[in-house]
Amino acid sequence: MAQQSTVLVDRHSGLPWREGWSLSGSSQGKKYAVQSKTYRGGLSEGVWSLEVDNGAWRIEILPTRGMSLAGIECGEVRLGWRSPVVGPVHPQYVPLAEPSGLGWLDGFDEFLVRCGLESNGAPDFDPQGRLLYPLHGRIGNRPAQRVTVEVDDQRGELRVTGEVAETRFHLLKVLLSTTLITHVGTAQLEIIDRVTNLSALPAEIQMLYHINLGQPLLDAGSTVLLPARQVVPRNDASAKARATWDHFAGEQAGFAEQVYFCNVWSDAEGHSEALLKNAHGTCGFGLRYRVAELPCFTLWKNTAASEDGYVTGLEPGTNYPNPRSFERQHQRHLRLEGGASREFHLQCAYYADSAQLAEPQRRIQAMRQGETRLDDQPLPDWCA
Amino acid sequence: MAQQSTVLVDRHSGLPWREGWSLSGSSQGKKYAVQSKTYRGGLSEGVWSLEVDNGAWRIEILPTRGMSLAGIECGEVRLGWRSPVVGPVHPQYVPLAEPSGLGWLDGFDEFLVRCGLESNGAPDFDPQGRLLYPLHGRIGNRPAQRVTVEVDDQRGELRVTGEVAETRFHLLKVLLSTTLITHVGTAQLEIIDRVTNLSALPAEIQMLYHINLGQPLLDAGSTVLLPARQVVPRNDASAKARATWDHFAGEQAGFAEQVYFCNVWSDAEGHSEALLKNAHGTCGFGLRYRVAELPCFTLWKNTAASEDGYVTGLEPGTNYPNPRSFERQHQRHLRLEGGASREFHLQCAYYADSAQLAEPQRRIQAMRQGETRLDDQPLPDWCA
Amino acid sequence: MAQQSTVLVDRHSGLPWREGWSLSGSSQGKKYAVQSKTYRGGLSEGVWSLEVDNGAWRIEILPTRGMSLAGIECGEVRLGWRSPVVGPVHPQYVPLAEPSGLGWLDGFDEFLVRCGLESNGAPDFDPQGRLLYPLHGRIGNRPAQRVTVEVDDQRGELRVTGEVAETRFHLLKVLLSTTLITHVGTAQLEIIDRVTNLSALPAEIQMLYHINLGQPLLDAGSTVLLPARQVVPRNDASAKARATWDHFAGEQAGFAEQVYFCNVWSDAEGHSEALLKNAHGTCGFGLRYRVAELPCFTLWKNTAASEDGYVTGLEPGTNYPNPRSFERQHQRHLRLEGGASREFHLQCAYYADSAQLAEPQRRIQAMRQGETRLDDQPLPDWCA
Repeated sequence: MAQQSTVLVDRHSGLPWREGWSLSGSSQGKKYAVQSKTYRGGLSEGVWSLEVDNGAWRIEILPTRGMSLAGIECGEVRLGWRSPVVGPVHPQYVPLAEPSGLGWLDGFDEFLVRCGLESNGAPDFDPQGRLLYPLHGRIGNRPAQRVTVEVDDQRGELRVTGEVAETRFHLLKVLLSTTLITHVGTAQLEIIDRVTNLSALPAEIQMLYHINLGQPLLDAGSTVLLPARQVVPRNDASAKARATWDHFAGEQAGFAEQVYFCNVWSDAEGHSEALLKNAHGTCGFGLRYRVAELPCFTLWKNTAASEDGYVTGLEPGTNYPNPRSFERQHQRHLRLEGGASREFHLQCAYYADSAQLAEPQRRIQAMRQGETRLDDQPLPDWCA
Repeated sequence: MAQQSTVLVDRHSGLPWREGWSLSGSSQGKKYAVQSKTYRGGLSEGVWSLEVDNGAWRIEILPTRGMSLAGIECGEVRLGWRSPVVGPVHPQYVPLAEPSGLGWLDGFDEFLVRCGLESNGAPDFDPQGRLLYPLHGRIGNRPAQRVTVEVDDQRGELRVTGEVAETRFHLLKVLLSTTLITHVGTAQLEIIDRVTNLSALPAEIQMLYHINLGQPLLDAGSTVLLPARQVVPRNDASAKARATWDHFAGEQAGFAEQVYFCNVWSDAEGHSEALLKNAHGTCGFGLRYRVAELPCFTLWKNTAASEDGYVTGLEPGTNYPNPRSFERQHQRHLRLEGGASREFHLQCAYYADSAQLAEPQRRIQAMRQGETRLDDQPLPDWCA
Repeated sequence: MAQQSTVLVDRHSGLPWREGWSLSGSSQGKKYAVQSKTYRGGLSEGVWSLEVDNGAWRIEILPTRGMSLAGIECGEVRLGWRSPVVGPVHPQYVPLAEPSGLGWLDGFDEFLVRCGLESNGAPDFDPQGRLLYPLHGRIGNRPAQRVTVEVDDQRGELRVTGEVAETRFHLLKVLLSTTLITHVGTAQLEIIDRVTNLSALPAEIQMLYHINLGQPLLDAGSTVLLPARQVVPRNDASAKARATWDHFAGEQAGFAEQVYFCNVWSDAEGHSEALLKNAHGTCGFGLRYRVAELPCFTLWKNTAASEDGYVTGLEPGTNYPNPRSFERQHQRHLRLEGGASREFHLQCAYYADSAQLAEPQRRIQAMRQGETRLDDQPLPDWCA
């Protein structure tokens, strides 16, 4: 099987989810495997899952949850976090429409979940207090209408594509086409997302990648490296803690989340990078993306007790996750003409030792064009 | 098989949906077939569908969506429209409870969907802005609890009945029993709906048939014929365009919907009729109903770009689709005593050439008892 | 099979629901059986059900609906009621998030449904009218993530345990572990519920057991016996009818529900008891619980027409089912420290004749320490 393409589910042809489907093979002597399953029981009943094992990484994709990534197993280490929500949660149990705008939190337990596409930030209300846009948007709770797996033994490439629609008659009509690419034997993956405006009229969208890491990679003494030009605390509590904005403490029951909005430098090709490394500098997670596509980087620190979710979020986005109206007022949204589309590129990597960590650190250092400006209070134009 | 009756699903006996069930036969030398299936993938996952092929028409019924009709294939022509929503959408993905009241639009792609039964119009809010009644009501997103198919070879009759409940403890408790009848070899169908108040107390209900047609039947130059006594534009934009209220333009990106509320004449038996014919008068769709049952006719014109839904709605109802409180204030609702029921009768026909179109045009002409009064602005008693 | 334990569904191991599983046996010459099934059709599609037949009682448990009890068949008599809602209703069709806060009523048809765990009373809104806590809370519409059946032939004991989580990231994280115990050949069951705060931080919870009885046990002339120290009508209508607070009339179309909040005495071991007996005193239902765990007893009288639900509710709770903010203000909630748990114990019994009824009546009489104080109007501290 040099090359193979398999459709796992397709709304258009009526092909049902290929429950229990699997495929395995090898490329250049290294084994790989892909396997589908469906979660059963509790809030997970009926959630489709696809595990891509490239020999080094086992990546779990959730078609039912907008092609989110549940987590990545790399040997002993799991990239992801332990949410108090026992997921993955089927969208039927996520009340996005709840008047509070906070229903999204009922389903939040992934390593990578997209926020958007109509809105990606805090709940937004009209003057009467009526919900306009729920927290983090809808795309993470919409099921894929088509999923395909492609393998290419010669190139050692595994590729999963998915289509997720966010459409409402009279209102936003966009399609997310996501492609996840990983190569056999590597601790890396690449995501290429294309968002297409299906309407004949212009659309305004937002996108944010909510990438979440907890134990064991995140620990007391972990640090995050960013080529940050400017770091703005989101609120007073974050401002007060700004001296340690890029350091992480251990578990602390009742820790109130701290958030920093960042403007970052990039390299000559327009790539920026974020690196999370553990306290001893023996392992790390790197995220590489294009600043022109995702100009706003948000760092979310939530080093609460493990029971409540000990986690940090690395969140590159088209904007900061403020309420949509606020972001729009500050021109931080993406306008897509009728029929137009826009791509977003992300790369994730795991670094298993200090030697491997040296290279991304050098790259990030090289992106810096001066000192980081660390604001001592929220900026009115940045923080709702 | 002279006569046969098959129960396809029944909540009371616990009979599950007969997935993949089919039946075929012939009557007077003409073939027919009925087949069930379940949609798979995306927002359609789990939606039951029943296709009735009478030899001339293939009618698709959606038990999961309140016995809506997805569309009708008649040879080359499909009665229905292309919604930007890729449906049919399972009710679990239609957030009727969304505070905006607009969640219904997430599932809107049918040829015929009932609006009601507690309310059938625009969202209605209390003075604090809290949703009272969502857009177009709940009945179109409630699953049937019992579906039966009956065939009678001698009479060449195919009959599908379905039961859909809209009940809330302490509040409205009504049952829709719908019967669809079609005859082998004909481009026609009849719907007989019975709404029963299950409560011992009086109930106030609303019903509207949202019947939607797009390409190819609807095209630039299409016209609608109604025996209209009075036509009232719903808002200023509709008023401005009133001179062409019964004509349709081609696709226009950004076209803002126009709506006309109509009072119509009927024939001696109390039937009224609406006819949509294409620009060249080579085909048409006719709708016949009883004015005593459905006294208010709404014409919805939405000749937007095809990507956004190029469509018109022919909508006979117990009232105009204004917010429920407004309609109630103007006595436009249906009161059902405890245990009482009310029937609604509809007939749909397709006319394949100008010769066939002559007859319904003659009938509609004969219903007219004078000139149509076309109001030049919304009437305060008609338009919320 | 002296002892046997079977897991019927488990989210953690991925074990799917054991559809159609059954087990039967006998203990001391008496037969028992346990059987699982899944409801099909209408609003019940996909609801799991577990019937425990101990030879005298057939108890139906609904894992999909938070381990509620649908009803109990004891010979000719069914404990439960006929709701106008044809359930059991799958949670996907229960719009808890509806801005009205009343969506819970769409799924209300059980004999025993738990209200809680964040809130258990009337809908609660913020000053802008935005829903804070929906009617009766979420736990009754959350699916069990683990269900186990245990039988012990020697002791003649049947035991069903279930785990239901109510968790939201950043907010409440609690787990209900419920155990239902019944013995072969007895018209009794015992429920032991344990609610655990999964968070490291304190949690405030509420619990109420909404136990509902209709025909045939409830009839014109039925009475309820409580060792009531004080009985407070919830509103003016209830106050007006207070003279007959413990008597039930026959069906009355349009009967407006009456509610009485009660403070009760207990026996030396801290147990209190409620007894509902029919008009002729030929049968009755008894409920025994611990006052320290459930200090507030609510009696709900809804002797409406049968079509609208002729029913009474015996409702021991941690508080009265007022809006949560009101109850909190009056210190009627349960505080659980991080990781702490609390148990609730209930016993239900059916008494088949006047001889059997004598004993619980004697017990309740013995609990009384004086006259019942019957307030003639709502108390401001008790009634929101």
